[in-house]
Amino acid sequence: MASSLPLSTSILSSRTNGNNKGVPFTKPISHLSQNIDHKKPNNIVGMVTSQLPARPVYIPDRIPDKSYVRVLDTTLRDGEQAAGVALTGPEKLEIARLLAKLGVDVIEAGFPSSSREEFEAVRQIAIEVGNNVDENGHVPVISGLARCVEKDVEATWEAVKHAKYPRVTMVISTSKIHMQYKLKKSEEDVLSIVRDMADRRFLYQLVEEAIKGGATTIDFADTVGYKFPHEWAQFFQEARESIPGIDNVVLATHCHDDLGLATANTLAAVHAGARQVEVTINGIGERAGNASLEEVVMAIKCRGNDLLGGIYTGINTKHIFTTCKRVEELSGLPIQPNKSIVGRNAFVHASGIHQDGVLKHRGTYEIISPEDIGRPRPSNDGIVLGKLSGRHALQTKLTELGYELDDEKFKYVFWRFKALAEKKKDLCDSDIKSLLLEEKVAKASAKEAHQVHT
Amino acid sequence: MASSLPLSTSILSSRTNGNNKGVPFTKPISHLSQNIDHKKPNNIVGMVTSQLPARPVYIPDRIPDKSYVRVLDTTLRDGEQAAGVALTGPEKLEIARLLAKLGVDVIEAGFPSSSREEFEAVRQIAIEVGNNVDENGHVPVISGLARCVEKDVEATWEAVKHAKYPRVTMVISTSKIHMQYKLKKSEEDVLSIVRDMADRRFLYQLVEEAIKGGATTIDFADTVGYKFPHEWAQFFQEARESIPGIDNVVLATHCHDDLGLATANTLAAVHAGARQVEVTINGIGERAGNASLEEVVMAIKCRGNDLLGGIYTGINTKHIFTTCKRVEELSGLPIQPNKSIVGRNAFVHASGIHQDGVLKHRGTYEIISPEDIGRPRPSNDGIVLGKLSGRHALQTKLTELGYELDDEKFKYVFWRFKALAEKKKDLCDSDIKSLLLEEKVAKASAKEAHQVHT
Repeated sequence: MASSLPLSTSILSSRTNGNNKGVPFTKPISHLSQNIDHKKPNNIVGMVTSQLPARPVYIPDRIPDKSYVRVLDTTLRDGEQAAGVALTGPEKLEIARLLAKLGVDVIEAGFPSSSREEFEAVRQIAIEVGNNVDENGHVPVISGLARCVEKDVEATWEAVKHAKYPRVTMVISTSKIHMQYKLKKSEEDVLSIVRDMADRRFLYQLVEEAIKGGATTIDFADTVGYKFPHEWAQFFQEARESIPGIDNVVLATHCHDDLGLATANTLAAVHAGARQVEVTINGIGERAGNASLEEVVMAIKCRGNDLLGGIYTGINTKHIFTTCKRVEELSGLPIQPNKSIVGRNAFVHASGIHQDGVLKHRGTYEIISPEDIGRPRPSNDGIVLGKLSGRHALQTKLTELGYELDDEKFKYVFWRFKALAEKKKDLCDSDIKSLLLEEKVAKASAKEAHQVHT
Repeated sequence: MASSLPLSTSILSSRTNGNNKGVPFTKPISHLSQNIDHKKPNNIVGMVTSQLPARPVYIPDRIPDKSYVRVLDTTLRDGEQAAGVALTGPEKLEIARLLAKLGVDVIEAGFPSSSREEFEAVRQIAIEVGNNVDENGHVPVISGLARCVEKDVEATWEAVKHAKYPRVTMVISTSKIHMQYKLKKSEEDVLSIVRDMADRRFLYQLVEEAIKGGATTIDFADTVGYKFPHEWAQFFQEARESIPGIDNVVLATHCHDDLGLATANTLAAVHAGARQVEVTINGIGERAGNASLEEVVMAIKCRGNDLLGGIYTGINTKHIFTTCKRVEELSGLPIQPNKSIVGRNAFVHASGIHQDGVLKHRGTYEIISPEDIGRPRPSNDGIVLGKLSGRHALQTKLTELGYELDDEKFKYVFWRFKALAEKKKDLCDSDIKSLLLEEKVAKASAKEAHQVHT
């Protein structure tokens, strides 16, 4: 947002209706760095071609290339918190395999201390997916979520330790409303050294302590989906300016979609220096869900270079569509037709003006190609013949079907087409053919069709 | 976004893959102002209570209260462009009635010159809904879309003129890619006085001409959903600084959701001075759809006061849920469970940690109440019993069912509950009861249940 716009100065002030900031901080196990055996990659900045960019070597607390954004996928943890979703161990393992193939950097595999089955599912993922180094030398970090209590952390470590790169993500609330009602602890209990009760200073001190304690990634979460993008960016910027030691860790952003802003907030945080995005496939998750992997990744792919100073991710976008469809099946949560990137209609053009534009040049209304995400191009170039279609779309369809009409006959068929389309949604080829078989047009067009076909 | 962040300087530069800016400008009919008969309302700023705020008097080219944001709903025009949607005339009329009840300021009722039926549907809406002044003295403006050609404008005026406040919205493309491939016109053809080929200057001149020609609302459209929020805000700010006469019209924003940023972009434009938002119910529309009315309106309701300097809309949010569900039915486009505000799960809490928080205090994880949008609160306070549920949620359910167990029995039931939840999604009351009827627990709990019930 431009520099002279009004900026909020009350980001962390308490409010009466749910203002909170979860502060998960991820703490890797200290011997982890011994495992690093990647070669130093080329420092490719802002590559937005269909080729996969080289991925920087994995170091827990810093990313050698400042333009690289780590993708943490939490479909298996926060995504599974969506009501009605209960994935079995084998289903979780299958999704983890797809996420690894997709190229995510960190798989948040679950919350091991919530149940024996959950523990076992995370353990299996750590053992298999966490050790399956691909042809490019990539293997995802396997992370488990733990509350900041000894038994959670221990259970989580026991589950993830089998991975080549294990990680324990510890979560704690710092908003007054959460501390007061949920933890039933005063701020003094949570961090005894804090005397200043200002929300922000408390948060900063907590983070500073976490970094001193060995955290390698600090993740700020807008758990209730309340932030606006410019506000969230400002929060990251101020945190970077205010917290000693923060340059020595990776900053992460975890956003929820209660106001429809999760993707925008995630990108705003990246713009302000966050280099780990926490996302889910199809944006599934608690309540209105999380920022969606496909939106965040494709937005970075589209605009990372020209607008965001060359940032990029390691995601192989060609696997996005398959992964999203499989998670849709397994989660039982349908993707709505107008869902960005992966919805049924995302690449379908219905209006006559748009169809005309697309037929003339695909780039007119398409900023992403279906091929970019491994999606079959919808038939007829995404042109659906219906009541809003114009002459150009009908003409294209007729030519495709082998018909060539003179102007007068075309005009007649066009108006019959519009009349039919008022009564029937998306018209198929046989509907179009039936128009041509009707009296008056039938004889002439049949002859012409024959000429074209032969 | 904070002031020291890098800001794009290439907003309007052409790109190879679909950069465009549709520039609809709305031109009301000149005698319109004679119709204004509202009383001057109280100048209520930033009211976010459940009461309806007073709505400023309608004047086409300015809004007497600088904090008021006009809502233009284009469900019936851009929404109907969603593939697979074909609304009949009576269905359109029904939706228009719901939109009027919801309190939208402008109903974009259709594209009259696209077909005879469309013309007739818009005309009916203008006659009925466009003259039905409600008990608060409100009647929506009825707008029709027209390309910048004589016959479109004439047909549109014929359709909308019956409304108390009719409006013709004229649309034209200014992006090079659109002009080159779609209009097949050079910039000189579109605006002969322009000699400078810079995209931005061309756009500014076009707008200046439109204002001189009598346009009262200038709407900038991100037709392909390519913009980022900070970029879109900067675009509005620069337009305001650069175009002579722009302070004498209302600025509007029309955003598409191809990257999942439509809601954020709409709000960013409002933050930068736009005072008409163009939205659809459920965000339906061409491809991935438009900014959704419910998200934009509720975000303004949640944060307009504390974050955006007191802005507000005239929407009666209590009618949001009913309207969204009816449009879902009529359009045949299902709302996904994790859709913000109106999705099935938007107010449902599945994780144990969240359930515990909500049971202690609703505000912990809820920034909007279901009641705010006229939505029935999900049963059991949105707590779904499943594998991620914790002790607190089970305890609450048992108490609700009339059971009171001692610690040991509760512990036993809890573990049986967790085992069952691993196998079965959302557990219902009879599942919980069955746990208590099982051997060992049955006798003791039955006795206790009896005590509690009597």
